[in-house]
Amino acid sequence: MKEPTSLPDLQLSRDERGIELDAVGVTKLVLPLKLVDALGNVQSVPATWEATVSLAAELRGTHMSRFVSSLEEFGQEPLRTLDLSLLAKDLRRRLQSRNLRLSMGFSYFMRKVSPATEAVSSMNVPCELVVEDTEGSAAPSHTLSLELTASNLCPCSKAIADFGAHNQRVFIRASVGLVSPQLWDAPCLENLVSELETSASSPIFPLLKRADEKAVTEQQYINPKFVEDVTRDAALQLRGNKGVSGFSLEVEALESIHSHNAVARLFVS
Amino acid sequence: MKEPTSLPDLQLSRDERGIELDAVGVTKLVLPLKLVDALGNVQSVPATWEATVSLAAELRGTHMSRFVSSLEEFGQEPLRTLDLSLLAKDLRRRLQSRNLRLSMGFSYFMRKVSPATEAVSSMNVPCELVVEDTEGSAAPSHTLSLELTASNLCPCSKAIADFGAHNQRVFIRASVGLVSPQLWDAPCLENLVSELETSASSPIFPLLKRADEKAVTEQQYINPKFVEDVTRDAALQLRGNKGVSGFSLEVEALESIHSHNAVARLFVS
Amino acid sequence: MKEPTSLPDLQLSRDERGIELDAVGVTKLVLPLKLVDALGNVQSVPATWEATVSLAAELRGTHMSRFVSSLEEFGQEPLRTLDLSLLAKDLRRRLQSRNLRLSMGFSYFMRKVSPATEAVSSMNVPCELVVEDTEGSAAPSHTLSLELTASNLCPCSKAIADFGAHNQRVFIRASVGLVSPQLWDAPCLENLVSELETSASSPIFPLLKRADEKAVTEQQYINPKFVEDVTRDAALQLRGNKGVSGFSLEVEALESIHSHNAVARLFVS
Amino acid sequence: MKEPTSLPDLQLSRDERGIELDAVGVTKLVLPLKLVDALGNVQSVPATWEATVSLAAELRGTHMSRFVSSLEEFGQEPLRTLDLSLLAKDLRRRLQSRNLRLSMGFSYFMRKVSPATEAVSSMNVPCELVVEDTEGSAAPSHTLSLELTASNLCPCSKAIADFGAHNQRVFIRASVGLVSPQLWDAPCLENLVSELETSASSPIFPLLKRADEKAVTEQQYINPKFVEDVTRDAALQLRGNKGVSGFSLEVEALESIHSHNAVARLFVS
Repeated sequence: MKEPTSLPDLQLSRDERGIELDAVGVTKLVLPLKLVDALGNVQSVPATWEATVSLAAELRGTHMSRFVSSLEEFGQEPLRTLDLSLLAKDLRRRLQSRNLRLSMGFSYFMRKVSPATEAVSSMNVPCELVVEDTEGSAAPSHTLSLELTASNLCPCSKAIADFGAHNQRVFIRASVGLVSPQLWDAPCLENLVSELETSASSPIFPLLKRADEKAVTEQQYINPKFVEDVTRDAALQLRGNKGVSGFSLEVEALESIHSHNAVARLFVS
Repeated sequence: MKEPTSLPDLQLSRDERGIELDAVGVTKLVLPLKLVDALGNVQSVPATWEATVSLAAELRGTHMSRFVSSLEEFGQEPLRTLDLSLLAKDLRRRLQSRNLRLSMGFSYFMRKVSPATEAVSSMNVPCELVVEDTEGSAAPSHTLSLELTASNLCPCSKAIADFGAHNQRVFIRASVGLVSPQLWDAPCLENLVSELETSASSPIFPLLKRADEKAVTEQQYINPKFVEDVTRDAALQLRGNKGVSGFSLEVEALESIHSHNAVARLFVS
Repeated sequence: MKEPTSLPDLQLSRDERGIELDAVGVTKLVLPLKLVDALGNVQSVPATWEATVSLAAELRGTHMSRFVSSLEEFGQEPLRTLDLSLLAKDLRRRLQSRNLRLSMGFSYFMRKVSPATEAVSSMNVPCELVVEDTEGSAAPSHTLSLELTASNLCPCSKAIADFGAHNQRVFIRASVGLVSPQLWDAPCLENLVSELETSASSPIFPLLKRADEKAVTEQQYINPKFVEDVTRDAALQLRGNKGVSGFSLEVEALESIHSHNAVARLFVS
Repeated sequence: MKEPTSLPDLQLSRDERGIELDAVGVTKLVLPLKLVDALGNVQSVPATWEATVSLAAELRGTHMSRFVSSLEEFGQEPLRTLDLSLLAKDLRRRLQSRNLRLSMGFSYFMRKVSPATEAVSSMNVPCELVVEDTEGSAAPSHTLSLELTASNLCPCSKAIADFGAHNQRVFIRASVGLVSPQLWDAPCLENLVSELETSASSPIFPLLKRADEKAVTEQQYINPKFVEDVTRDAALQLRGNKGVSGFSLEVEALESIHSHNAVARLFVS
């Protein structure tokens, strides 16, 4: 059945307030997404989308249902970043906007192998991919954000205590500009995670047997790091990654001796 | 590589405090899960697990890594509820416990067809499946909880206003005991959702074109419901479902004229 | 201005579905509340209320605005638990219900003194007080729930590692029945927190100088505890508290070597 | 007791990585704060602080406990924004940093009077005040962010439906630069809220009697607004406020016919 043409379309009315809006659209829209992982397997995950366009001063509104129908259709096929660029360009033109931004948040599972017994498990890495297309630009920009959970042990606590040292979960959040859209595809996402993990006192694992727990405990103790250290070491890693064009970092530790957190940030670098 | 046997196993130590614990285990564990949907397609989603056992008074601790390795392995194959019963029984025996409880939370996508233009889109339904096995029981119990989002329009507002009526998103949360483990499988989950949807003023849809929006707006207006009404109508629906053995209900409306919510609950019924 | 009497009152209509509802009311209602702390100071905090009554089968709805006006008025004066009992009884009768339940969530600040330098700081303890009045009962029941943040160090990790041991934030959540409504008032809340703190490997503090950090680090290391241990030790403490009539416990540790949590629970005891 | 001087101070070590960090400090720190409201009453609320400084390339870390002791002390006296500027300047110098940023999040209660019966209730407005001091600047900058909950009714739904129109809760989030630190003080915060409320289809109220509910329902219906309209009307209001130097806006509606939200944004304007 087709949409009756007789219903009024208020979004197209002329707006007299003279204010261009930077972003208008839908947010917290959950739709299926098919990802191809490092082993070539399809991970069919829920993606949480935000899709917005700029709105010219003379238009009253945008047609939000067009975002939903496009993203629904997009999720039917396995995601290739090239297609995402095409989608962004196409949607921006159809919605007659100067700027379009698509953000998709999803969980990506990585294969982790424990350090001593080589037990295999799947670790969830929350990711967000943002594609932005602006009128007149050669190609859309791609930015990948991820939140890696690791562990850090406090250098100060180790230095002053006669035994032990407090340690805790630490979140390493990186947003990286992608030189080429392909970078974010596995196994490059895996590489990025590995680089960030080496910046912490130790990586963490869903599955650890006793011999693994011994190895991780000892690695943390011989490798103490402040959140400041984790941030700087992560920055050095990302600077050496040729697929990355600019990045920002946030490192937040769930201090085990306080109920507040310690944080360090490096803005666009 | 095998686990060295020389490392001490403190969990097995004898506990002298004389206190049996009801539940000991892991929570907020995110692992991949493969679901088969109503069309026979595999949805490979992240599942958030909680897995606990009771702990006898004389034991100091349980071996939590066994939960992780079992659930990791379980997620490799498409989920059949029969397998889940077997997993529960097997894990409970290996952990030598009187009681075991597995809970998995996941997002399930349902196909929605809009009321006027028949536009198709995917709606996310948060679900939780709980399997519990107790020593001496014939079979593990299965409980399915789901949170359906719909819309309700206030009968009082409609009755007293000269025009219009406030309406809002309403969450219908049902926990249903499953007569047979198969019930939760699609398309029975779809049936359950349909029954609950008829209890609201109208269902909602990710994708609505203008003719659909007209239809939904008018359906809400001619079908006003308090949260009390939604709860009672949902209860009548569930009482008529032969696959359901006992249920509880919670209906919560995000009142559009307040910043607090209205709520109605029916305990186990 | 008075409420016009000519507007229809649909809530009072007769319901024919024959279903009594267990709880109907408002939730996530944030209103000011005045607490008197251990030093006699008034802490004027935001309280998040849930207020519900049971609804007889023959009534269509309850008058939710009566909850709001009563709780708004109640928050004008410093909280005395005796008044809360009176409020519960009064509201239940006015709403002609068999059962009424009021729950208020709030943050309570406790004075903490660091172990070495005696630095003073304020620690936030999330609390919930529930008062329930049932037709025919002598007096309303009072239940206090609180979430205390502390630290635990893993006994297994300490035993197997040549140096160090993983440790982390641990949440100790207790719900205690109050023998007398006064118990929950400060300083009894402070006593309860102290009892629970001794169950962890160490308490935590908002403010620690270097000598304090040394003390806390070493205390954790010499006092390793599984979540199972914390739960049992907390249970022993609560059993010895004469103001407590029944309790439940949950202990959840943010494992620093995993991204999932360890949990232990003791149901009503 | 004083801090022993013999304990090593690793934060002061020289860092060789050559990376200046933009922000290092504490976050999610909850401490008491005393606010003076429009009626001159003290609201003693929990404030959630983030406090960071930039860290010079040659320093390994900052002394995070100094933030905690300063903010703890600061919360003892009723907040005057002038004192906040002094605190920022003082802390930045003591921590020898180029830049310092303090952010405090808190709930502010406003008095609301219902439109028909003039019933009085307290509405919670989440706020965040940010003070930033940079070396060489004349005075710290002050930015106030607030999230106001209101209601909007969809113009499209009203235009196409024969009766009714969908409406919902809408969040209006504004961040405004303050010309003078005093602006944020009550009653100016109340003025800001009033300006933003007129941009929605109607304000909302914690307490509404039937005659009020009739008034609000009808006001919404005769005053339909897209999120785009709310944003533009709010922008016009803020442009006319002489105490505001620059602002950004976000308007997000919890669509009652979808489970996703509609959003509109205006960046710094």
